Amino acid sequence: MNDVARVAGVSRGSISNYINGRRTKPATQLKIEAAIEQLNYVPNATARALKTNKSNYVVLIIPTVNTPFFSELSYHMQLSLNQFGYKMILCNSNSNPEDEIDYIQMANMQKVAGIITMSYSDIADIVSPNIPLVAIEKPVSPQFPLVVSDNYAGGQLAAKQLQTLGAKKLLFISKAPVKNISSIREKGFKDFCTKNNLSVSTFLASDSPDFINDFEAFIINHTHNHDFAYDGIFSDADEYASDFWHLLMQQHIDVPNTVQIIGFDAAHVYKRQKIFLSSIRQPVEAIAKTTVEKLYEQMASQHPVSQATITTLPVTFQQGFTTKKVRP
Amino acid sequence: MNDVARVAGVSRGSISNYINGRRTKPATQLKIEAAIEQLNYVPNATARALKTNKSNYVVLIIPTVNTPFFSELSYHMQLSLNQFGYKMILCNSNSNPEDEIDYIQMANMQKVAGIITMSYSDIADIVSPNIPLVAIEKPVSPQFPLVVSDNYAGGQLAAKQLQTLGAKKLLFISKAPVKNISSIREKGFKDFCTKNNLSVSTFLASDSPDFINDFEAFIINHTHNHDFAYDGIFSDADEYASDFWHLLMQQHIDVPNTVQIIGFDAAHVYKRQKIFLSSIRQPVEAIAKTTVEKLYEQMASQHPVSQATITTLPVTFQQGFTTKKVRP
Repeated sequence: MNDVARVAGVSRGSISNYINGRRTKPATQLKIEAAIEQLNYVPNATARALKTNKSNYVVLIIPTVNTPFFSELSYHMQLSLNQFGYKMILCNSNSNPEDEIDYIQMANMQKVAGIITMSYSDIADIVSPNIPLVAIEKPVSPQFPLVVSDNYAGGQLAAKQLQTLGAKKLLFISKAPVKNISSIREKGFKDFCTKNNLSVSTFLASDSPDFINDFEAFIINHTHNHDFAYDGIFSDADEYASDFWHLLMQQHIDVPNTVQIIGFDAAHVYKRQKIFLSSIRQPVEAIAKTTVEKLYEQMASQHPVSQATITTLPVTFQQGFTTKKVRP
Repeated sequence: MNDVARVAGVSRGSISNYINGRRTKPATQLKIEAAIEQLNYVPNATARALKTNKSNYVVLIIPTVNTPFFSELSYHMQLSLNQFGYKMILCNSNSNPEDEIDYIQMANMQKVAGIITMSYSDIADIVSPNIPLVAIEKPVSPQFPLVVSDNYAGGQLAAKQLQTLGAKKLLFISKAPVKNISSIREKGFKDFCTKNNLSVSTFLASDSPDFINDFEAFIINHTHNHDFAYDGIFSDADEYASDFWHLLMQQHIDVPNTVQIIGFDAAHVYKRQKIFLSSIRQPVEAIAKTTVEKLYEQMASQHPVSQATITTLPVTFQQGFTTKKVRP
């Protein structure tokens, strides 16, 4: 560090400020960077972390990165954290409470800078009160901010869209049990139907790896002469909506002309791919951005808050190939 | 640490061994864990990393986690690393050389335990020789192991499968430019066709965000009376194969009865979802497992090797809805 200061012709304090990410004059910064390059100096992040007693790692705990929604969310989360100078440690919990707790304990041990979690276990007691945390989808405790999409409005929007597009016999499909945010989406959908005198039914597949077979049997039982008994379908998840769509096509049922389908998430399977399924879009990029901002606020503040904010982000309808085009 | 030793009734050295992950007698381990719990002692990973001069972080650099293949790979990679006691730092490079270099430099600075990278930039010179590294898909330098799927055999397998299923007019589709592993897949496919006197053509969409429009125009230009000019289609990527399938369906072309389609990757969009597209499956779990083993070998060895191994993993054909069922 002394060598860098000498070569750069600046004080040791300026070097320290630069390395620790504190504000440095642009001219000083350029001199330091030139010196660092010349000397091939690598500041030791571990030594820095020990000195400041915090690292620049943020832990992201999600059920699995292997779904379009979570992979898109992880992508934007990592890039948002990167903009603040933080690295993202990805943890897949498979919604297993023991694994969630293990990851939280790891975060405590590693003195990470923060935790972002989408956890359905009761982790409030084991989170160190000194680590900033933001919850997604489900609150951890009133102490920590929550960022969530407007799931109720999303269910309403799906029903309204199907009504506008001429559907008369609506159907909600999912896999049992419907809980947490899924039940909020279901409630929004059904409340709109009830209020607007729309016929609405429910079909839930069994909670098994072969649940898709239940969808198939249901479709076959409710199809006569290529005519399916329902004309407007909503699911709380793109996965189920997409399964249902493919199964209807296999029965030669015309989607969207006789049956229309709307899913939930509208996450991008590929970054640039056109959305094939009509769906309620969660604002993935805004969720990531807001979450990182809420985390950074806690990092910057010296005083933990007793009552944290809940941020509800708006959803939108995303037109795909499974609903008719709206006539202007 | 002294308190833990006192409460557990073991030596300070045993505590140190336990914390540093060295072998400890099971009985001693139980005593230490009970004492740690009783005292609510959190070993400071940062202090440990400084002392041993290495952390337990492994950096994974991929173009983007937001594709089925990379999200499935990241999922298995994190769980495999976890089994060895390592945490995974996820880095999305968007195939941007500057970002790849930034992440490598970050890894050098943070003294990470290792790097796993799928990088198309020339990063060999900037990787610290002291950091274990494993390359996926494309070699970094002869010094570092490479783990790759058998892409050539995958292309051959697709052609053979289409031939067996009765296709006569084969078509390779992709997006320009076809390079790296994609061109190896293409070559395997075409070599099989040439050797077996099968007619084979190529259509490449332009390298633009709207490339799907090129697919659509090609399909419309080559369709007469719901009859598409080709009956066996292979793509080096599930993304393009899936786009093509949906576009053929929109033209009311019967897949798989008149046109059959095979993609590449067969990655799971959702962990438990049935595969709808017939495709050549990369052994994602084996890629993750092998990569982590090759990384761990380097970590455990004191001597860097001059010539590292290349591991080529076998691919398989995965039956979906876009090829006819093979008659036994």
